[in-house]
Amino acid sequence: MRGITLELKNVFAPANDEAIVQKFTDTDFYKFPMGYFIWKNPLYRDVEVTFKLIIRDPKIKLPEIIPEGALREHLNACLCLRPNPAENSFVGGMTLSDNKTHIMPGDFLAELGNMQLPPYKLEVVDGQYELTFTGPWWKVTWWEIFSMEIVSELYYYYYIKKHGLSEFEVMALYSAMINKAHKKIMLLKEYPELIYVLFDTRRRHARLLQELFMWIMREEMPGQCVGSSNVWLSMKHGSNNPIGTNAHELPMVKACLAGNDVEKIRQSQYDIIDEWMDTFGYDMSIMLIDTFGTPQFLRRAPAWMAKQNKGIRPDSMHPTVNTDLMVEWWKKHDVDPMEKLVLPSDGLDAPEMIEYHRENAHKVGVFSFGWGTLAGNDCRDVWPRIKGAELFRPFSMACKVVSANGVPAVKLSDNPNKATGPRDRIEFFKKIFGVEGQQEQKVIV
Amino acid sequence: MRGITLELKNVFAPANDEAIVQKFTDTDFYKFPMGYFIWKNPLYRDVEVTFKLIIRDPKIKLPEIIPEGALREHLNACLCLRPNPAENSFVGGMTLSDNKTHIMPGDFLAELGNMQLPPYKLEVVDGQYELTFTGPWWKVTWWEIFSMEIVSELYYYYYIKKHGLSEFEVMALYSAMINKAHKKIMLLKEYPELIYVLFDTRRRHARLLQELFMWIMREEMPGQCVGSSNVWLSMKHGSNNPIGTNAHELPMVKACLAGNDVEKIRQSQYDIIDEWMDTFGYDMSIMLIDTFGTPQFLRRAPAWMAKQNKGIRPDSMHPTVNTDLMVEWWKKHDVDPMEKLVLPSDGLDAPEMIEYHRENAHKVGVFSFGWGTLAGNDCRDVWPRIKGAELFRPFSMACKVVSANGVPAVKLSDNPNKATGPRDRIEFFKKIFGVEGQQEQKVIV
Repeated sequence: MRGITLELKNVFAPANDEAIVQKFTDTDFYKFPMGYFIWKNPLYRDVEVTFKLIIRDPKIKLPEIIPEGALREHLNACLCLRPNPAENSFVGGMTLSDNKTHIMPGDFLAELGNMQLPPYKLEVVDGQYELTFTGPWWKVTWWEIFSMEIVSELYYYYYIKKHGLSEFEVMALYSAMINKAHKKIMLLKEYPELIYVLFDTRRRHARLLQELFMWIMREEMPGQCVGSSNVWLSMKHGSNNPIGTNAHELPMVKACLAGNDVEKIRQSQYDIIDEWMDTFGYDMSIMLIDTFGTPQFLRRAPAWMAKQNKGIRPDSMHPTVNTDLMVEWWKKHDVDPMEKLVLPSDGLDAPEMIEYHRENAHKVGVFSFGWGTLAGNDCRDVWPRIKGAELFRPFSMACKVVSANGVPAVKLSDNPNKATGPRDRIEFFKKIFGVEGQQEQKVIV
Repeated sequence: MRGITLELKNVFAPANDEAIVQKFTDTDFYKFPMGYFIWKNPLYRDVEVTFKLIIRDPKIKLPEIIPEGALREHLNACLCLRPNPAENSFVGGMTLSDNKTHIMPGDFLAELGNMQLPPYKLEVVDGQYELTFTGPWWKVTWWEIFSMEIVSELYYYYYIKKHGLSEFEVMALYSAMINKAHKKIMLLKEYPELIYVLFDTRRRHARLLQELFMWIMREEMPGQCVGSSNVWLSMKHGSNNPIGTNAHELPMVKACLAGNDVEKIRQSQYDIIDEWMDTFGYDMSIMLIDTFGTPQFLRRAPAWMAKQNKGIRPDSMHPTVNTDLMVEWWKKHDVDPMEKLVLPSDGLDAPEMIEYHRENAHKVGVFSFGWGTLAGNDCRDVWPRIKGAELFRPFSMACKVVSANGVPAVKLSDNPNKATGPRDRIEFFKKIFGVEGQQEQKVIV
């Protein structure tokens, strides 16, 4: 544990006058293959895209907690961020499973090393921060994770500061969080076949706490905690490579680029996977297919997709319902589900992971989890006072594409509570894709 | 400085029941390109080579300090060492200056990931440990740094333990070392043009102290301390890539393979550089030419070498004498010395670095230093008691090739005190190469 001795009263970067995001690689790995995918295609590279921070939880009013000056200060610090030579070596050295084919070529990384992030725009609108990022897609995409890391860490830091907790109370608070993590680890160790990847970068409580929990899980259950999506932490701890493939922004932007052409919009969800496969092949082919609803995707999907993909990442449908749907689809196309992977990643915690593992692990080749916010930031019920705990908890936040080339972006998802986009455009997309299989579920994070 | 909070009373890995060498990449970078160079050539790869730990200082009797059991324990821990996926990504991602050509290919790293280090042999002979490593060259070569790291760290740990220093005395001791480092940094900062690379892995005092000093120097003088030879620390701190090219073992083994053929032996020092250049090209072409004496090397060297190499690393001749010799040679071959690099690396400390910098920096394009043992392990005059300090200091130690395919290996060097090999074979080599320009200098480390 040496090297990460954590002073519990000193968890936050802002408390130490340090930037929250200190490394360009302090982000999710999927940003790199996606960044390369966007960069290399002249049709995508310079598309003007706007990302926007979306606080789904109406009770969370950021300006009441986070001072605007502090938010600007940490966002400004990102403007100078660039991958340095060692980070470029690490990312550039990652290969496909043949141990030979480098995922990202050197010319992309060299250009990234000279890239300047586009500016941000910050206003207060209706008592909420409106934080947007506009610029060429291949540059602006990086803001997604950086902005969420900053807002998330600042929120908890200033929440504690606002309530004036004493040093002892802060220690009690983090001891309670460590204790919760300990109990979850004990629970998960009862199921040594249950494996997971840490996906807890974007809504982390604090960088140092994320690192501590990652270290503990890798030490305590190396066979179960097989890695992290965080590039920098994977590099810094030097054991497994970071893990990730792609995100909703790809089909969302692709659909924008189709304008109002219904057929093109419907087709876009397949074309983007086709292009992705052309770029990276089988190893990186875990599909995210819930952008416009999973059932309609599967019904219209070309047969080759059932065969040539590694598996699926369910991100909004109940994992068991989704797994059964996939198994049915694979079987329909004469594909053995035992050759496929299913990796649910939507707001999971230890008890649900165990439940889903027991229900599904026998149905497919690999059934593992992307364990996100509740792995590193389960600060529910740890507040050390009787009052003030109401909003000290993870909250639903995302940073999403809201437009591309002036066309508003839409995500329907399998859970209408996770839908994003302007109401009329959502309705237009619902007519195109249908609402088959949609099911409301509470969104925790 | 968070992340490397160092408890001064707790500097050593053995004090924490931890292996001293915990990562395969906790080694000098040059081992990787050399390892690949050896591995890829069927004439070198499986040559049976023996490395041997050489304690040049007759006052240092290791068995009086280091218990054999402890030494075996830490050497045994190395037997299971392998680069893991993240380490392979980092090393595999390093490129030449074109940002495209990877220095080490994936198939080499994949094989390295399955390699098992050859066993060691440990005996006590005449009151000294005789520690040897025999096996195929491409595997046995890795022991060089691992064995020295272990012996060096164990020596200081057990020296302190033997003398029963109190916790306070240990703190005083390390405070004195930090204080010395602070003064050196202050001194070097007076010369902002003076740049150096940390070469302090093999004879380090302790891993954590090495890391602390590297961190301090990178923070305090990032433009002057441009990196480290240590692969793992470079990766862990994620800023600059590790630095290094090659070592004496290449020409020494090449000469062994020439048997007793005088012409072949004389030619071997050039052939090996030729092959190295074929493998890596200009970027990795800093020559180490003192193996059998620098003046004879230059006198007989082919003209293309003066043109097509990046520069030279003087390792046993006085840096100013050596620089003048090089400038003369380059000019003789119509090469502008302002396009060349000179990087002295032999037992340097801050005052000498300043002296050599002032004498030579204007003569060549880049004049920088490989700052070794005295950067991270200057434990002279820090002993916190009146008695017991005599042998608490850096000492001259190396781990060298002593034979290849049964033929004894020889290094003459420009300083006869750094020569290695059996006496009769040294004499044979002196006849072949001459002793032109040899000059005795005290060997500190």
